[in-house]
Amino acid sequence: MALCFPAPTWIDWNSGALCGEGVESSVTRLGDLRGIFDDEAAWQKLDPTTEVYRVNFWRPVADGTQGGLFWGTTTLQPGLVGEEYFMTHGHFHAEPERAEFYATLSGSGCLILMDENRECIGQNMSAGSVHYIPGRVAHRVANTGTDPLVFLASWPSDAGHDYSTIRANGFSKRLLKRDGIPGLVLCQR
Amino acid sequence: MALCFPAPTWIDWNSGALCGEGVESSVTRLGDLRGIFDDEAAWQKLDPTTEVYRVNFWRPVADGTQGGLFWGTTTLQPGLVGEEYFMTHGHFHAEPERAEFYATLSGSGCLILMDENRECIGQNMSAGSVHYIPGRVAHRVANTGTDPLVFLASWPSDAGHDYSTIRANGFSKRLLKRDGIPGLVLCQR
Repeated sequence: MALCFPAPTWIDWNSGALCGEGVESSVTRLGDLRGIFDDEAAWQKLDPTTEVYRVNFWRPVADGTQGGLFWGTTTLQPGLVGEEYFMTHGHFHAEPERAEFYATLSGSGCLILMDENRECIGQNMSAGSVHYIPGRVAHRVANTGTDPLVFLASWPSDAGHDYSTIRANGFSKRLLKRDGIPGLVLCQR
Repeated sequence: MALCFPAPTWIDWNSGALCGEGVESSVTRLGDLRGIFDDEAAWQKLDPTTEVYRVNFWRPVADGTQGGLFWGTTTLQPGLVGEEYFMTHGHFHAEPERAEFYATLSGSGCLILMDENRECIGQNMSAGSVHYIPGRVAHRVANTGTDPLVFLASWPSDAGHDYSTIRANGFSKRLLKRDGIPGLVLCQR
């Protein structure tokens, strides 16, 4: 009987880059993030092809496999849209109880966590910080530094993504640059 | 309403050491591995207090939580018991479908995988190798180098451990040093 285990892949611990059979990648540009940043006029003025983040990920089993896991590296560029830091779209998991780990390889930023009651906190991210995102908690990352922010993630392969709740209602707080430093402020709208 | 997200912990990417609130650690010594190595006489002659491996782990939620995840670093020392490399006990998951990721930070070794039909393969581990252990697959790691082998793991918090199947029946192959190099050989008994 032939054994059929997924072959190992490779991570470069300096850059976070993953390579190997089955490794995928997706790029999110400013133009893909319509309605996500607060300052629509500032967003309109920026080049929509500007890369905001890139995810390099390995799904060794099919999406939705119960008990399986996925692994990936996100590289989030530094930048501002008005006074709001470049950030990921953010999502809940479609399977709400599913958790996720983030571990920061380099750069600095903020992990924004919001529960289903829209209570929202930020956790500082810097090289070596390891973050646990419990189930039923939306998560988004903002880059507050001048270098790319690179972090690993591991999440259950049946977690899925619920982006629509965030598209409709956003997070209750935004990470803005005020007086030169990041502050998590309540949304005006 | 007070928010109660687990505070971040910290990983040193060079050593793999985890620290922070809630980080636990366990040490397995030669004396704890009775019956695991093939050469019982060689095992008897070694100091039972010799450290074989240490796991530094973070369980941000209770053991058994569905949808949750755990994170840890294993440091496996180099050494031989007779001609068999120092290795971890090895286990199936108690919840059989649960998978696991390993990612090697430093050192060199072999991940030994065995399915429920006792079909067994080895995957070489070296800095940067990322390994997916599917559900229903027993896993054990051997250090084939001269330095400690350090690897990260992420696994579901409801995976549990079934050590007893390995204690009773072992793996079907053993990683032995023959002519100075590692070889995965069928068990004689």
